[in-house]
Amino acid sequence: MASSSDQVREHSCFQEWIAQQECDLSELLHYMEAPANSDETSAAREVCLRQLVDKNIRHFQAYSEKRIRLARDDVSPFFSPTWCSIFENSLLWLGGCRPTLLIRLVYALCGLQIESQLDKFLEGIRTGNLGELSARQLSLINDLQGRTIKEEGRLSSCVASLQEKIGDQPIATIVNESSSEFLEPNAKVDEALDEHEQSMVSMLEEADRLRMKTLKELMNILTPLQAVNFLAASKKLHLCVHACGKRRDRFHGRRGK
Amino acid sequence: MASSSDQVREHSCFQEWIAQQECDLSELLHYMEAPANSDETSAAREVCLRQLVDKNIRHFQAYSEKRIRLARDDVSPFFSPTWCSIFENSLLWLGGCRPTLLIRLVYALCGLQIESQLDKFLEGIRTGNLGELSARQLSLINDLQGRTIKEEGRLSSCVASLQEKIGDQPIATIVNESSSEFLEPNAKVDEALDEHEQSMVSMLEEADRLRMKTLKELMNILTPLQAVNFLAASKKLHLCVHACGKRRDRFHGRRGK
Repeated sequence: MASSSDQVREHSCFQEWIAQQECDLSELLHYMEAPANSDETSAAREVCLRQLVDKNIRHFQAYSEKRIRLARDDVSPFFSPTWCSIFENSLLWLGGCRPTLLIRLVYALCGLQIESQLDKFLEGIRTGNLGELSARQLSLINDLQGRTIKEEGRLSSCVASLQEKIGDQPIATIVNESSSEFLEPNAKVDEALDEHEQSMVSMLEEADRLRMKTLKELMNILTPLQAVNFLAASKKLHLCVHACGKRRDRFHGRRGK
Repeated sequence: MASSSDQVREHSCFQEWIAQQECDLSELLHYMEAPANSDETSAAREVCLRQLVDKNIRHFQAYSEKRIRLARDDVSPFFSPTWCSIFENSLLWLGGCRPTLLIRLVYALCGLQIESQLDKFLEGIRTGNLGELSARQLSLINDLQGRTIKEEGRLSSCVASLQEKIGDQPIATIVNESSSEFLEPNAKVDEALDEHEQSMVSMLEEADRLRMKTLKELMNILTPLQAVNFLAASKKLHLCVHACGKRRDRFHGRRGK
């Protein structure tokens, strides 16, 4: 069971994650903008970019592990975090972003980059960014998208079943038997809700695993340069929605004044 | 756009709804427990119970209309309400309960009441409550459940598409074009988020319509006595989860101390 000090830990876990995202984004942008070192071979640069991608994945993994540890003490706040803006919360799927959002972002960036560099492409100039996904890469991403939609659907159905179970035993027995409108605190109800929360921890773990799996597969499909390009855009997207959400909360006179 | 006074209105809309639920529950229990008036014919009692059911449905309808009006000014809080407990929020589906939860509760109550009155039933004593659903009623409920699951799935898919769209234009353009890690407040992003919120209002309306439709159909399938029985149990369930959630929040040192 959690206490108010757990609340502080949950908040700071998220704040540290946002700070990490900003720091990682800064490093990713630095690598993307740095002119290629003439002493550096193309292969050496690839290795360097791949290491950067791996480091970013390790940061995701560490954040996920930390929040799962916290969720084991008190899971409900992860489905409706008080540390996110109200707007961000309305976008949540099982305590985080939808894994398919990552794939949608790849397609959007690919389309935008094709459009913006079409002239150069026709002149034979290659940049190797997301506008130059190969047919094989597109086919692999398409396959990943299909599998991810399916897994998202499966987890959504599991959550639906858990939520519906609230209308079943043992709570149904208690509301059926009680003849009063004032239900006293009841140990059996609390036990049922504890059990529900334990199942929600498993759901959060499964959802985080799917987010991580989708990201890792995507990173393996993309070239190191494309992967860095994608990671920078996805972090900008996250930080942008977080900042806009906070501004909206302030505007509406909500949290985080 | 909403202001902090809208926050007050949103909170009090929910508080009034909880008070209304308590008041309605009290009236439902009173009718259920009152001995049948010897001057009252069975038909007259049915009319009286049906009027009570209709009144309860009108209260649901009025609450739904009121919150949709408020949501048009500021929709996000309805998907992650600060006026509910954190536990209740983890149970939400599109700003309220899953319509299929209502059907699950009917089945649970039916099973429990069959079990508890089996001896009397075998002696030929009939109470007419939810333990005595006819084959025709069960078939209609089963059909309703099938259609409701389908509709829930359709709305869940619509929300998934909306959430994924955040990774698409025009926000993708902005995160693609900006070379800085500090994204300035951007009118285009705000416009996109406003548009997203408008779509979320429509989703909330559709979900409320489905909740209402499911409840009304269920009330028509059940006899007036069974309907009163069900409404009382569903209100007890709601109030019980609300009270337990608030206790859990206090225990965890969260809102509502």
